[in-house]
Amino acid sequence: METYLRVPMEELKSFGTDCLMRAGIPADEAEIISDNLVMADARGIYSHGMMRLGIYIDRVRKGGTAAETRINVLRSRGATALIDGGNGSGHVVSVRAMEMAIDKARLHGIGAVGVRGSNHNGAEAYFAMQALKHDMIGFCVTVGAANIMAPWGGAAPLLGNNPFAIAIPAGEELPIVLDMACSVAARGWIVLARKNKEPIPPGWALSKEGEPTTDPTEAYEGTVLPFGGYKGFGLALLGAVLGGVLTGAAVGSEVTDFYEDLVEEQNVGHFFAALKIDHFLPIDQFKARMDNFIRELKGVKLAKGFERIYMPGEREFLILEESRTLGIKVSSGVARELVRLGQELGVTPPAPIA
Amino acid sequence: METYLRVPMEELKSFGTDCLMRAGIPADEAEIISDNLVMADARGIYSHGMMRLGIYIDRVRKGGTAAETRINVLRSRGATALIDGGNGSGHVVSVRAMEMAIDKARLHGIGAVGVRGSNHNGAEAYFAMQALKHDMIGFCVTVGAANIMAPWGGAAPLLGNNPFAIAIPAGEELPIVLDMACSVAARGWIVLARKNKEPIPPGWALSKEGEPTTDPTEAYEGTVLPFGGYKGFGLALLGAVLGGVLTGAAVGSEVTDFYEDLVEEQNVGHFFAALKIDHFLPIDQFKARMDNFIRELKGVKLAKGFERIYMPGEREFLILEESRTLGIKVSSGVARELVRLGQELGVTPPAPIA
Repeated sequence: METYLRVPMEELKSFGTDCLMRAGIPADEAEIISDNLVMADARGIYSHGMMRLGIYIDRVRKGGTAAETRINVLRSRGATALIDGGNGSGHVVSVRAMEMAIDKARLHGIGAVGVRGSNHNGAEAYFAMQALKHDMIGFCVTVGAANIMAPWGGAAPLLGNNPFAIAIPAGEELPIVLDMACSVAARGWIVLARKNKEPIPPGWALSKEGEPTTDPTEAYEGTVLPFGGYKGFGLALLGAVLGGVLTGAAVGSEVTDFYEDLVEEQNVGHFFAALKIDHFLPIDQFKARMDNFIRELKGVKLAKGFERIYMPGEREFLILEESRTLGIKVSSGVARELVRLGQELGVTPPAPIA
Repeated sequence: METYLRVPMEELKSFGTDCLMRAGIPADEAEIISDNLVMADARGIYSHGMMRLGIYIDRVRKGGTAAETRINVLRSRGATALIDGGNGSGHVVSVRAMEMAIDKARLHGIGAVGVRGSNHNGAEAYFAMQALKHDMIGFCVTVGAANIMAPWGGAAPLLGNNPFAIAIPAGEELPIVLDMACSVAARGWIVLARKNKEPIPPGWALSKEGEPTTDPTEAYEGTVLPFGGYKGFGLALLGAVLGGVLTGAAVGSEVTDFYEDLVEEQNVGHFFAALKIDHFLPIDQFKARMDNFIRELKGVKLAKGFERIYMPGEREFLILEESRTLGIKVSSGVARELVRLGQELGVTPPAPIA
């Protein structure tokens, strides 16, 4: 078990913002990126939190990602738009694209914005959740910034995890926030198992020969399997079409690896949509119906081995509450990396990890 | 192995239309319903084909479904609409709602139509595919017309299978048509295993006590499991929100059973959306990109145990081709039911099964 430290949210966010600014990113953008990373950690999605601060900074310093985000609106007609992110930071491009989708939905009831020329954008829930305060349902999907999955029946990686998120407001109950990737298990777990020389569970991956494997090195060199077999493949394909084929972003063999090539533009694509609820039902009625439905679902008899029923996103809201009061959990490994990064950039890390 | 007969598509469709008309359904609606059922059979989705003709007719005769479909547009603003199906046939309501979504998308680039007051609408792919000839991406989801799934961690059914479909045009390659339910296996397979006194595979279902079971009777009395665990639950929940909570249709404990109560209105809900591709990319460019991507995916090295890579919907297109030339496969069991139904209604069945 790795030990961890608790760091106040605001301090961690300021540290992230300062580091990103030292890499040449403008203050307003640095704040968006750092907020996105800190919110991922605060919600317990440590795989997409400050652990990744270093790689985002490396990409900017090596030229793979533009320091400043200059968005170009290629088309904006009716309830839709297509934008080019100008190779800016994926988080910044995504926040702005989602704002456009929300503006479109305010006018037309629904809005959809496709994006090309972007970069890795962190955890998707963040962008879908932008819709919540507007009493809208938010949706986003991204083409994964590395190919790690084969089409169903294949053995060569031509698809990303292609994660997507949906956020739905409720009344007194917590919003529903569904955020998932299309693989059975995140590739990060395979990397970890390989480091620890531990076998992985069956059903996670194929070797590069296309055979099921529990060997983490074979799995690392092979492909991850989609969740639900061909169903998960279908969803990954859908993400690639909406985020990539439709937008002119990279798909299939055009996709390069976020971690391996820090110099070339990746042309990452995303797709965002927002739906204005009161075009269908008065918002109070919708929220009351959501509350009723959530309470019914949470109130059913439990299956064997379960102590409680969680709605999608509920665990993350509970962890967020804890992070707000106790501080964000930062593992000692990530703390060491942040301290080193701070030293390199001349930024003082938050007291608990310094 | 059950034997089957081959029936020409047009003859099977005429038979279905005539039977539905004898039940009091207007000719144009009867044709839509019969076409939907025949297309399901022709695409190999036998669980949603003529096998169900009897139950649709029974519901109309017993008053559970209105013979004539009178749609009421409750709201139509910008790119969205909410309609009440007037308790008409789900297939007819759905075809018309999807047409509205397409009309909205023609004007605004995207269109979304919510539906309440509808009924069981058969296979979803049919409606999503309406978008294809307009060079649009089609989406639909329905609240299942019976609760058979528990929330993840629960043991009481409060969710349907909530199937959804997405259709994406291509150029020279076949369109992508993804049509899936949110359970691991359709409940029909459990019904069949129960009839044949055969165990079901682990992971399909829980008993009503909330314990994993391979006993088909325990499974039948219990709940089906979502595909991909909590991920499939999240998707089923999303379907219930879009099709039910948002539209004012039945969700949770409001949902009755399609097969068990033939008299009361079910208030089934659906949600349809269409996306106009040329609001993003010129259609030829999109189709060329789709073709390239499909060819890349289909061309990768095969995994062990696979002979070919299929795109979502590809098998169904191949079966459709066969059904068009050789006739539709009708199992001897379904043939017997159709002959009996024909006799009862005074309609002569197609020659091969008469």
